[in-house]
Amino acid sequence: MNLKCMTIILAVAFACTFCHAQTSSGSINEDFRPSPLNQPGQEYPQVNSQGYARFRIFAPHSDSIRVSLGLGGQGGTRLSKGSDGFFTGTTAGPMDEGFHYYHLTIDGGVFNDPGALNFYGSTRWESGIEIPAKDQDFYALKAVPHGHVQQILFPSKSTNTSRRAFVYTPPGYGKSSRRYPVLYLQHGWGEDETAWSNQGRANLIMDNLIAEGKVKPFIIVMTYGMTNEVKWGSIRSFKIDEFQTVLTDELIPYIDNNFLTVANRENRAMAGLSMGGMETHSITLNKSDLFGYYALLSGGIFKPEELKDKAKPRLIFLSCGSKERPEGVLNAVSTLKEAGYHVVSYVSENTAHEFLTWRRSLRELAPLLFN
Amino acid sequence: MNLKCMTIILAVAFACTFCHAQTSSGSINEDFRPSPLNQPGQEYPQVNSQGYARFRIFAPHSDSIRVSLGLGGQGGTRLSKGSDGFFTGTTAGPMDEGFHYYHLTIDGGVFNDPGALNFYGSTRWESGIEIPAKDQDFYALKAVPHGHVQQILFPSKSTNTSRRAFVYTPPGYGKSSRRYPVLYLQHGWGEDETAWSNQGRANLIMDNLIAEGKVKPFIIVMTYGMTNEVKWGSIRSFKIDEFQTVLTDELIPYIDNNFLTVANRENRAMAGLSMGGMETHSITLNKSDLFGYYALLSGGIFKPEELKDKAKPRLIFLSCGSKERPEGVLNAVSTLKEAGYHVVSYVSENTAHEFLTWRRSLRELAPLLFN
Repeated sequence: MNLKCMTIILAVAFACTFCHAQTSSGSINEDFRPSPLNQPGQEYPQVNSQGYARFRIFAPHSDSIRVSLGLGGQGGTRLSKGSDGFFTGTTAGPMDEGFHYYHLTIDGGVFNDPGALNFYGSTRWESGIEIPAKDQDFYALKAVPHGHVQQILFPSKSTNTSRRAFVYTPPGYGKSSRRYPVLYLQHGWGEDETAWSNQGRANLIMDNLIAEGKVKPFIIVMTYGMTNEVKWGSIRSFKIDEFQTVLTDELIPYIDNNFLTVANRENRAMAGLSMGGMETHSITLNKSDLFGYYALLSGGIFKPEELKDKAKPRLIFLSCGSKERPEGVLNAVSTLKEAGYHVVSYVSENTAHEFLTWRRSLRELAPLLFN
Repeated sequence: MNLKCMTIILAVAFACTFCHAQTSSGSINEDFRPSPLNQPGQEYPQVNSQGYARFRIFAPHSDSIRVSLGLGGQGGTRLSKGSDGFFTGTTAGPMDEGFHYYHLTIDGGVFNDPGALNFYGSTRWESGIEIPAKDQDFYALKAVPHGHVQQILFPSKSTNTSRRAFVYTPPGYGKSSRRYPVLYLQHGWGEDETAWSNQGRANLIMDNLIAEGKVKPFIIVMTYGMTNEVKWGSIRSFKIDEFQTVLTDELIPYIDNNFLTVANRENRAMAGLSMGGMETHSITLNKSDLFGYYALLSGGIFKPEELKDKAKPRLIFLSCGSKERPEGVLNAVSTLKEAGYHVVSYVSENTAHEFLTWRRSLRELAPLLFN
C-alpha cells in the first residue's frame, strides 16, 4: 500500500456510517425486542426480526432528537415527540446485521442514548446497538468452557507510562505448563484496546471455536494502537514508529515474560482491522522476523514486491465486507498467489466496514493460524 | 443488623448524593484542570485546587441544563447558556475529595456528560468525576509492578448462565507455583462487578501496597451481587439466598479450581461496601466455615450475639466515612471487643458514602488480612 489503500479504507468507513440493508419495503413486523446491548433493564432501543431499529428517549422539554443511524443523506432517523414526553422513531429501513455505533443529536448537542451500553469508537464512548445476525451463534455466550480476558498494565519506557492491554487466555490456560502461540490483534481508528472484546466478542468467538475443536487454542493480545490522535483528514501523517516500538520492544517482551507463550515467529501472528490493518501491514513488513502470520481485516492488502526481501509469511489473510468493494482484496489475492504466497481471503456477505465483518473474519482466520 | 442498618445505610447514601465539602466561601481559584476521569482529549468537566467542579456542555438549541452534583436542596448545579451554544457552570462550593457519580438533566431528560467517562452506579452507566484527594498517591497509577485484572465467565447452574467476575492477581502471579489467599469483595447497590476496579481502583491500591511491602499479596474476586433488581423503597425484600448460592456454591469452587489459591477458611476473606456489606454480613454468618475475615465498609455492623454460635472470625473490620455517622461503627467495635473479638475500625476523614471512603478502607483493610 499504503496511503492510497488507507484513503480507500477511510472513505469506505465514513460512507458506511450510514449504511443499511437495501431491502426496505413493505410492512414493518411489530416484533421489536430490546437490543442485546442495552443497559440492564432498559427496554429501548429495540430491534425487530427484519432489522429495523426503534428508539425511545425521554426528553419532555426538548424540541428535536435525531439518531445518527438510518439512511445516508437523510442525516439519520428523526424521532417524533409524543405528549408523554417521549421521542420515538424507527429507522426508515432494516439495518445491516451486527453491531453499530450511534449517538443522539438533541437540539443540536451530541449525547448518548441512556438506554444503550457505550462502546469506544470515533474517539469517544458511543451508544451501541446490535442487530442479531442469522449466524449470531458463533459469537454468542454459550455454556462452553470460557477463557479469561485479563487487563494488564505493562511498562513502556518509550512513552514513559504504564500502558493497558487485554489478554485473552484460552480455557484451561495455566492449569499445566502448556505454552501457547499468540495473536496480536489491533482495533481500528477511533477505537481502543477494549474494542475487540466488547464490540468484537473475540473471547466468545474463540471460546466457541475451541469448544467445537475448530482451532488450536492461542492467546490474543489487544492493545491501543495509538491511532486516535490522527484526524480523518490527516491520516497520511500517521507514523508507525512510536506504536511499533511499544508493540515490538515493550509489549511482546512483557507478554513473553509473563504468559505461557511460545516465543518465536512461527507462533506469533499479527492482525488488525481498518487502520489496525494499516499498522499490521507496516509492522509485519518492518519486523518480518517477529511474525509468521499476517492478517488485514478491511485493512488493505499486501503486494508481492513489498514482501520479496522479507522473511516469508506462513499465511497472509485478507478480508473485508461485501459492501466494501472486495475487488481490491480479491485481486491482491490472485497476485500474491501467483507470486507463491500462501494467501486466504474472506468476504463477509452483506456487511460493510463494521464489526460483524470483523467478527466473521476472526472466525475464518483463527482456524488457519499456527498450523 | 440487618434491616435497620440497611435502612440507615441507604438513607445516608441517598442524602450524600448531594454531599459536598462545607467550606464554600471566598474566591474561586482559576486553576481548573480536566478531571482525571474525562474521556480522551476532553477538556471538561474540570476541577480546581479547592475542589470546585466546572462543567461545559454544547447544546445550542436546548433551554436548560442542570448537573446533579452540587448543593443539597438546590437540585445540583444549573448551567448558564452562552451565545456560543455552550452551557457552563461551576458548583456552588468545593466537592468532597474523591469520586462522584453524576448526570445531566437537559430540558427534563436525563443524559450523561459527553466529556466524562461512565461508571456503573444507580443501576445505570453514569458520568463520573474525580476530585483529586490530598492522599491520592495511594490509588495512583505508578511505575511499580502491576497485577492483572481478569474477566472470567464462570458457569452458574443455579441461574442457568455464565456469570461474570473480575479477578485481581498480584504481580508475579503464575510465574511460580505459589498459591495465594483470596478476598471476595462486593460492590454496593446500583453498582456491579466493574465498580471496585473502575471507581475503586482496587488493583492500583493493591499494586502500590505490595510495592511498598505493606501487604501479603492476595487475589481479589469481584462479582455482581445481584442487588440491582431491588428498589430503594423495597430493600427489605432482598433475600440473600440466590446470591449466596452463586458465591459459595459456584464462584468459590470455580476460583479454587482455576486459580492458585489456598482454599481454606484462614485464607479466604469477604468484604463489601454499603449493600455489599449487608451481603457480607449475611453470608459470613451463614457460612462462617468458609470465611476467616469479615469486613463491612459503610455497610453496617456485627453484634456479638450474631457471632456467638459461629466459627470465630480472625478479624472483623468495620469502616465508614466521617460524614456517615461513625458512632454506629465505633460503638459496635467497643461491644465486639468487650466480647473478645479481634476488631479493627477505620473512619475516613471528610468523606461520605462514596468511593474515596472505600478506597481508603481497602488500603486500611488489606494489610490486616491473612496474617
